[in-house]
Amino acid sequence: MAEALRIGIAGLGTVGASAMRVLAGKAAELTRQCGRDLVVTAVSARDRSRDRGIELGAAEWFDDPVDMARTADIDVFVELIGGDEGPAHACVKAALEAGRHVVTANKALLAKHGVALAEIAESKGVLLNYEAAVAGGIPIIKTMREAMAGNTVSRVFGILNGTCNYILTRMEAEGLSFDECLKDAQRLGYAEADPTFDIEGHDTAHKLAILTSLAFGCRISADDIYMEGISNISQADIQAAGELGYRIKLLGVAQQTESGIEQRVHPTMVPTASVIAQVHGVTNAVAVETDILGELLLSGPGAGGNATASAVVGDIADIAKSRPGFQHGPVFGRPARELNPYRKARMRSHEGGYFIRLTVHDRVGVFAAVAKRMADNEISLESIVQRAPKSMNGTKKTVILVTHATTEAAVRKAVEGVTKDGHLVDKPQVIRIERAD
Amino acid sequence: MAEALRIGIAGLGTVGASAMRVLAGKAAELTRQCGRDLVVTAVSARDRSRDRGIELGAAEWFDDPVDMARTADIDVFVELIGGDEGPAHACVKAALEAGRHVVTANKALLAKHGVALAEIAESKGVLLNYEAAVAGGIPIIKTMREAMAGNTVSRVFGILNGTCNYILTRMEAEGLSFDECLKDAQRLGYAEADPTFDIEGHDTAHKLAILTSLAFGCRISADDIYMEGISNISQADIQAAGELGYRIKLLGVAQQTESGIEQRVHPTMVPTASVIAQVHGVTNAVAVETDILGELLLSGPGAGGNATASAVVGDIADIAKSRPGFQHGPVFGRPARELNPYRKARMRSHEGGYFIRLTVHDRVGVFAAVAKRMADNEISLESIVQRAPKSMNGTKKTVILVTHATTEAAVRKAVEGVTKDGHLVDKPQVIRIERAD
Repeated sequence: MAEALRIGIAGLGTVGASAMRVLAGKAAELTRQCGRDLVVTAVSARDRSRDRGIELGAAEWFDDPVDMARTADIDVFVELIGGDEGPAHACVKAALEAGRHVVTANKALLAKHGVALAEIAESKGVLLNYEAAVAGGIPIIKTMREAMAGNTVSRVFGILNGTCNYILTRMEAEGLSFDECLKDAQRLGYAEADPTFDIEGHDTAHKLAILTSLAFGCRISADDIYMEGISNISQADIQAAGELGYRIKLLGVAQQTESGIEQRVHPTMVPTASVIAQVHGVTNAVAVETDILGELLLSGPGAGGNATASAVVGDIADIAKSRPGFQHGPVFGRPARELNPYRKARMRSHEGGYFIRLTVHDRVGVFAAVAKRMADNEISLESIVQRAPKSMNGTKKTVILVTHATTEAAVRKAVEGVTKDGHLVDKPQVIRIERAD
Repeated sequence: MAEALRIGIAGLGTVGASAMRVLAGKAAELTRQCGRDLVVTAVSARDRSRDRGIELGAAEWFDDPVDMARTADIDVFVELIGGDEGPAHACVKAALEAGRHVVTANKALLAKHGVALAEIAESKGVLLNYEAAVAGGIPIIKTMREAMAGNTVSRVFGILNGTCNYILTRMEAEGLSFDECLKDAQRLGYAEADPTFDIEGHDTAHKLAILTSLAFGCRISADDIYMEGISNISQADIQAAGELGYRIKLLGVAQQTESGIEQRVHPTMVPTASVIAQVHGVTNAVAVETDILGELLLSGPGAGGNATASAVVGDIADIAKSRPGFQHGPVFGRPARELNPYRKARMRSHEGGYFIRLTVHDRVGVFAAVAKRMADNEISLESIVQRAPKSMNGTKKTVILVTHATTEAAVRKAVEGVTKDGHLVDKPQVIRIERAD
């Protein structure tokens, strides 16, 4: 049997502890699968004395992960610290420069420094695996990086944040408000005390940026992502969506268009009968459309210690099955130096259907004025519903429009026009509709 | 750059021609991804003169695929001939024995000879890749063999035959009979002139046998699969399923139970709100449940030249990225010689919910007799519906039972009892219910 693979783990939080437990508990089967033992020989975390419910065994302790990356007796450095700068960045860079394979679950780090780190990995002939960084346990990186060789991707989209999907699922199922669901998510540990990063779409954007690079062979550009969160989604939107045959999901979407690549994160209406619409709660899902394979969808747990640890262990096993001197495919599908520059499509050029919900004064001529603004901007309507719910006391009414494919620019102009007309009681709500099977 | 990977393709039908087109059309991108050129240097098919709409270029022609496997100047032998014996078996065996990597789309061959072929591959240190053999373009082999390292699988199930799913989808959507839908499927090329292999579950069983080995680390045992096809599914079943919140799918299911491994292929009721219930038409889907990752579902095109070719090219690319002397993981997850013997669970021990539809004489006491037979066999009922549709002219009625979890043995005994009681007008219909999220 080949020599044991020596593993160093930096960061012993939920995921790190889970990974340790899996590596120990499934040691015999992993050895059978990989043809060699997988042994944790070094660990590093902030607090040595904390009880994590795991055996550190004979693993050497390092207070400093960068020191571990440089000097420990390891073949693979596993980074589970988190954060796009500081020790996480420093130790991954140090490990790659020292010629060690790296496994990381750090989406923020890759979204910011992924290409530079890939260049180091490729020049050193080592692997940089990051399955756990996107959609937790779902093997979307392996699928796009390996299984889809030869495919040209036209669109990749997905539910990439469990917190948001949990909130939207409960809002729909139980008729609760956004704030009530967020509080429950916080109580259950699905949302942070400061939930901004999740609910405003930043987390989804980091993951999307990585998928975009894999999809289109371009450099990662997380700063160029159009972003809208879910905090302004109301019961009125969710109910109207349901009546129209849609469900609202926070999607990350990357799409190749004539004017460049669209990267956008926003609440999206998907057809209720589509597969992605059935992805409930904290579950994630990613769909990829290509010229040869067609459309593929993967769904599964997007977070949690065990699911994330599963992806980390899969990445380590891939390294264990490789042999010294072996060089696997490039980190982002094609060599980092050959990644195309990112060419951004303007959001105003986005084409698609739109849901527009307007709360207007209940007076003569409003409906006609709204219809005219749409027509003036050459927006063709699939449906238009006008309602005067009792709760509005006869002074206001709701107008809900669903457009055929049009442009973002046209919709913005039309809605600006309606606003100027002075009929609106409330801020207009605009939600993009996404095609999905 | 490394030397070109030399590829020999045996079988130039739909999939072979598609693979040739992808390898030629995406040559530059594949070279970028793999770090070397991928060149088809040899081909073999039955008829050299046939126009396949592809350029054979400088590839050497072989009339005999076994001859090509042994003597051609190739690194990878791609078998796209089909069939579990004859030339397909002979040439794959010859190629492996000659120390060449093999890529195959042949589920029948692997279901029968997979373990023996894996032993040869592993002893020669070459790869045997077969992503295209199960669920076409869906990367389920890569997912189970690589991404799920360290996971213990409890159940794998899926829609593995596009023909059956197409028929069931149309029956439900359009209220057509099985025979009408089958005829349309044949006209559209989704079903063979002799459709037995698809509609009676044999094709699903071959694919399931491979997934079972990957899931449970056991030897392949396709002959031990319990099998029921979809030809006796009627509109009455589909409509009753819909009313009860279920949809009927032909599933292949493999499950670890206390008494051994269950492998079964049969029409199955899955909850309408589950993800797998939204998989329509010729699309396939596979779900895997494990201890660490949780539940993962993949859906996508399960057949067709391009989707299958995508999987074949992915397999070839994986070989191209490997280097001489490199040994990847074992063919079926663990080394062929260490695969466990297959321990079969008795179908009578299967536990689950059941849908039972009885057509009975419309007379006093029938309902009570049916209920008594269920109670006598300790079957607890979730729902029981009695109906006398007009079409039955007042002489017959329908009794539909949905049971809580019980055993196959109990259900068979109860249904035998009801049959003996002499109340049945027609053959009883029994459809298993499968838990799915």
